[in-house]
Amino acid sequence: MFNTIGIITKPNDPRSDDKARELITLLKDKNVAVVQDDKQITEQADLIIVVGGDGSLLNTARTFVDKKIPILGINLGRLGFLADVPVTNMEEIVSEVLNGDFTKEERRLLSCQVEQDGKILGQFLALNDAVVHRTETLKMIEFDLFIDDKFVSNQRADGLIITTPTGSTAYALSSGGPIMHPGVDAIGLVSICPHTMSHRPLLVPGDSEIVIKVKNSEDGAIVSFDGQTSVPIKTGQDIRLHQYSSAIDLLHPKNYDYFEIIRSKLHWGTKL
Amino acid sequence: MFNTIGIITKPNDPRSDDKARELITLLKDKNVAVVQDDKQITEQADLIIVVGGDGSLLNTARTFVDKKIPILGINLGRLGFLADVPVTNMEEIVSEVLNGDFTKEERRLLSCQVEQDGKILGQFLALNDAVVHRTETLKMIEFDLFIDDKFVSNQRADGLIITTPTGSTAYALSSGGPIMHPGVDAIGLVSICPHTMSHRPLLVPGDSEIVIKVKNSEDGAIVSFDGQTSVPIKTGQDIRLHQYSSAIDLLHPKNYDYFEIIRSKLHWGTKL
Amino acid sequence: MFNTIGIITKPNDPRSDDKARELITLLKDKNVAVVQDDKQITEQADLIIVVGGDGSLLNTARTFVDKKIPILGINLGRLGFLADVPVTNMEEIVSEVLNGDFTKEERRLLSCQVEQDGKILGQFLALNDAVVHRTETLKMIEFDLFIDDKFVSNQRADGLIITTPTGSTAYALSSGGPIMHPGVDAIGLVSICPHTMSHRPLLVPGDSEIVIKVKNSEDGAIVSFDGQTSVPIKTGQDIRLHQYSSAIDLLHPKNYDYFEIIRSKLHWGTKL
Amino acid sequence: MFNTIGIITKPNDPRSDDKARELITLLKDKNVAVVQDDKQITEQADLIIVVGGDGSLLNTARTFVDKKIPILGINLGRLGFLADVPVTNMEEIVSEVLNGDFTKEERRLLSCQVEQDGKILGQFLALNDAVVHRTETLKMIEFDLFIDDKFVSNQRADGLIITTPTGSTAYALSSGGPIMHPGVDAIGLVSICPHTMSHRPLLVPGDSEIVIKVKNSEDGAIVSFDGQTSVPIKTGQDIRLHQYSSAIDLLHPKNYDYFEIIRSKLHWGTKL
Repeated sequence: MFNTIGIITKPNDPRSDDKARELITLLKDKNVAVVQDDKQITEQADLIIVVGGDGSLLNTARTFVDKKIPILGINLGRLGFLADVPVTNMEEIVSEVLNGDFTKEERRLLSCQVEQDGKILGQFLALNDAVVHRTETLKMIEFDLFIDDKFVSNQRADGLIITTPTGSTAYALSSGGPIMHPGVDAIGLVSICPHTMSHRPLLVPGDSEIVIKVKNSEDGAIVSFDGQTSVPIKTGQDIRLHQYSSAIDLLHPKNYDYFEIIRSKLHWGTKL
Repeated sequence: MFNTIGIITKPNDPRSDDKARELITLLKDKNVAVVQDDKQITEQADLIIVVGGDGSLLNTARTFVDKKIPILGINLGRLGFLADVPVTNMEEIVSEVLNGDFTKEERRLLSCQVEQDGKILGQFLALNDAVVHRTETLKMIEFDLFIDDKFVSNQRADGLIITTPTGSTAYALSSGGPIMHPGVDAIGLVSICPHTMSHRPLLVPGDSEIVIKVKNSEDGAIVSFDGQTSVPIKTGQDIRLHQYSSAIDLLHPKNYDYFEIIRSKLHWGTKL
Repeated sequence: MFNTIGIITKPNDPRSDDKARELITLLKDKNVAVVQDDKQITEQADLIIVVGGDGSLLNTARTFVDKKIPILGINLGRLGFLADVPVTNMEEIVSEVLNGDFTKEERRLLSCQVEQDGKILGQFLALNDAVVHRTETLKMIEFDLFIDDKFVSNQRADGLIITTPTGSTAYALSSGGPIMHPGVDAIGLVSICPHTMSHRPLLVPGDSEIVIKVKNSEDGAIVSFDGQTSVPIKTGQDIRLHQYSSAIDLLHPKNYDYFEIIRSKLHWGTKL
Repeated sequence: MFNTIGIITKPNDPRSDDKARELITLLKDKNVAVVQDDKQITEQADLIIVVGGDGSLLNTARTFVDKKIPILGINLGRLGFLADVPVTNMEEIVSEVLNGDFTKEERRLLSCQVEQDGKILGQFLALNDAVVHRTETLKMIEFDLFIDDKFVSNQRADGLIITTPTGSTAYALSSGGPIMHPGVDAIGLVSICPHTMSHRPLLVPGDSEIVIKVKNSEDGAIVSFDGQTSVPIKTGQDIRLHQYSSAIDLLHPKNYDYFEIIRSKLHWGTKL
C-alpha cells in the first residue's frame, strides 16, 4: 500500500524522537522505506506519519498539502482531533494502515493573501483558521467584511476568526462558533468579542471569497494562521481568503468515529 | 417568460385579496393567464406569486415543491427573508420578473418521517425547520440523536431544531444557532435550552440522515414543521430527516442581496 | 440544639420511606422528637430534614418558609445543589448537625401574584424561579417588562425566567443565564429564545418589583413556579414579583463549599 | 447648591475646549467659581463637570474618587452610559443641576493590587473593569481563580474580565456577560474566549475578595483598568481585587432612566 513513509517529529521533544525511532524500526521490519528530510518527503513519500499532536499535524498539513501525500497522526498526549492514533496503539494501528485498513478523509485548507493597493504582500495557508486580531493594546480593531465582492458588515471587535470545519473545534469554539462536521463544505466567520449584541457566527459556502479590510488607524492588526504563524497588518491592507485548491488526505484508524471524538474531547452534552 | 401564473393569497386577509386583484389586473394586461386553484396551479402554472409574507411562502413551498414551479413572494408587511418584493414595488418588480429580470435561487427542504417499529406513521416537509419539543408540561424531553446511523448524543432539553440554511434566520436564531448562507449545503442541529453547559449548534453535511429517538416516558413530545403544522410524538417513536429530493426555485428582484436583507432584518452588527 | 425534627419524604418513593425510617431510628436514639405531619411540623419542628432531592426541598421551602424552620436536605440521588447531604453520609452528617456543626445560609424566595384590573387572582412562591412561558402551540408570547414601575422592554420570546440566585443554576442556566452566588442580593431576568439578537440576561437589585404584562391575544401563557406548580395566564393579566418577606435557612454540612458544588455539578471549566 | 465647579476636558480635543469655555461663561454668569487644575479641583470643587465622553468620565472617577466630589458628564458624541448630558442640552441641564434638579447615583469602583510573594507591586482603580488578558502572542493564559480564599476554578482563556455593574455594559458585554443594574451589589467575572464549553459568567457578592493567580510560564499577561491603563503581569504574580472603600456620586439629569439608556444604546430588544 505505502512504500516510502515520511516521518515528522515534534521539534525539541525527546519523547517524539523516541517514538519515531520505534516507528522507524517497525516500518523497516515491514520493508517500508523511511525518509525524514522535508525535501525527500516531498519527492518520495507516499504517506506521512506525524509523531506529536494536533499542532505538529497542522504544521505538516500546511507544508506538504501541494503533494497531497496522506497524513496519519500519532498522538503523544491526549487524543487529538486530527492526530488520533494514541501512541499506545501505534504499532497496531500503523500495521493496519499499512495493510490498507484505514479511513481516509479529505480536509480543505484556507488560502490567505495579504494585499495592499492590489499588490500581494504575502501568501499563507491554514488548516484550522486564520485569525485577524487586535495587537497588545486592547484597542478593538475595525474592519469591513466582504463576501464575493458584496459588503457584509462593518465590525468593531477584538478580532475575526475565519475557520474551516476542521478549525470549528479549535479557537472558533471558544468564541462561540458552531461545530461543523468536516464533511460540510463551508467556511465559518466568528467574531471575537464583537462590540455589538446583534452578531452571530456566519457560515458561507466553501467556494466563497472573503475579504477583510482593516480600517482602524492607529495600531493595525495581526493575522495568524493555525495559531502558529503570524504577520502584522497595517491599516489599509486587505486580507483575502478562499479555500485552497489542494486538500490533504487525513488518515484515521479504520473504526474512526467523528462524533465519538467530539463527545470525548468536548465532553459534549455532559449532563447537569 | 411565464405564461400562466398561480396566485396564492393569505387566508382571511382582505389586504392580500385586494393586492391579488391588482396583481391579476396587471398580469391580464400583460396577457398572462392567472390561476388560483391549487389543482390548476399544480397542472398549469409556470410561476407562483404569493401575496402575503414569509408564512404564506413557507406553506406554498411545501405544497408545490414537487412541481418545481418558481415562487415569487410579495410582502404585505415588513420585508421578509423569503417574500422580498415590497408590496409598494409590486407592479415594477413583477413586470421585471415577467421580462426575465430576476435572481433565481434554489432552496432545499427537509423531509421528515415519523416512524414506529419500522413503520412510517407520517411524512412531512419543512422549508425552514422541523422542531421537536416538549409539550405544555414544561418537562424536558430526552432523546438520542443519530447521524448516518452513528450515535451522536443523548440530550435532555426543551427541544431540538433541525434547520435548513433558510431556517437559520428563523427559530434557530432565537435558540443561539449560526446564520447559514442559503448556498451552504448543510443541515443545522440547534438544541433548545439544553440541560448541559457543554452543548453547541452542530452543522452536518446536506446529505446526512438524522434520526431522533424520543426517550422520555410520560408526556411524549411534539414535532412541528415551519411552525405551521405539528404532530404529537410518543415515546418509542422516531423522527427521521433528510434533505428532500426536490427543491424550490425562489425568485428575487434582480438586485437581490442576501447580506443586505440580513443587515436590515437582523440589525446585524448594530454598533453600541 | 434541635429538639423536634420534622421529616419530609418524597411522595411514592419507597427508598425515601426506607431512609426516613432509618433516620427516625437514629433521631430517637438521640432523644430527638420526630414529627411528620405538615401541621405538626409547622407548630413544633425546629428543624426540617428532607429525604429526597432538590425537588422535594424546593417544595418544602415554599410550604414552610413563613415559619423560618431551618431545612437540611438528604439526597437520595446525585449530589444536589440544595439537598447536599449524600444519603451514604446521612448518619454522620445528621449527627454533626445535631451537635451544631453545620453551615447555615439564608436563601430568599420570590413572591409572585397574578393580577387583573388591580384584583389579585392568585399568590405563589418560588425558591428557584418563576417562568412565564408559551403554551403548547409553539406561538411566541409577547409581553412588556417593568421594573419598579419603569418600562424596560417589550419582548417576543418563548418565555421569561425570573430567577433567584438559587435558581441561577437551574432552568435559567439552560437559557444562557449567568451563575449567581447565593450571597448576591439580586433577581435575574433571562429570556427564553427571544425573537431578537440583542437581548441579554438582566440582573436587578433584590428589592426590585418586577411586573410582566402579557400582551399576546390568542393563547395566553403559563406561569410555573420551581417547575412544580403552574397556572394559566390570560392576555391582559399581569404577573407581579418581588423578593418574599421571609427567607429560609438552608443547612449544609460544616465543610460546605459552594464553588466545589458548582464545579462538580456543572463540570465547570472542564478543559478541552 | 454648588459653589465651586471643577471642569475636566478631553485632552487634545478642540471641541471639548470650546464647549468648556461656553460652560465656564455660563457658570460665571451664575456666580459659580470654576477651577480646572487637578490640585484645585481636589481641594475646592464641590462638583466636577466632565466635558468629553464616557472615557473622560472613567478617568475622572478614578482620579477624584477619594474626595467623593459628585461628577456630571457632558457628552460631546453619542449619548454615553456615564456622561449622559447631551452637549446640545448642556446649558439647560447644567442650570437645572445648579438648582438641585438632578438624580444622584452611587457607583462603586474596584480596587486592584498586583502582588508577588506577599509584596504589593502596584495599586490601581477601575470604575468599569479590570481585564487580565494574554499578550500579543495569541497564546492563551492560564490562571487559578479564588473567591474569599476559596478555589473556584483553573482556567485557560484569552483573559478574564472583573467587572462592576457599571462595566457590565462595556467590554464584559462583548464577552457574553449579563447586564447588571447599577443598584446590584455584585462583581461580575466574565471569561474571554475560555478554552472550555462549560463556562458561564459568574456573579459574586460586592464584598467578595477575588484573587487571580497567573500560571502560564512563557509570556505572562497584562492587566488593564477601564481599558485606559495597563501593566504587565509575570507568571507567579497575583492580582487581588475588591470593591474600593470610596464610591463616586454620579449626577444625571433629573428624568434619568437607566433602562431608557440601555434600550437606546444597546438597541435592546430590537425585534426581528
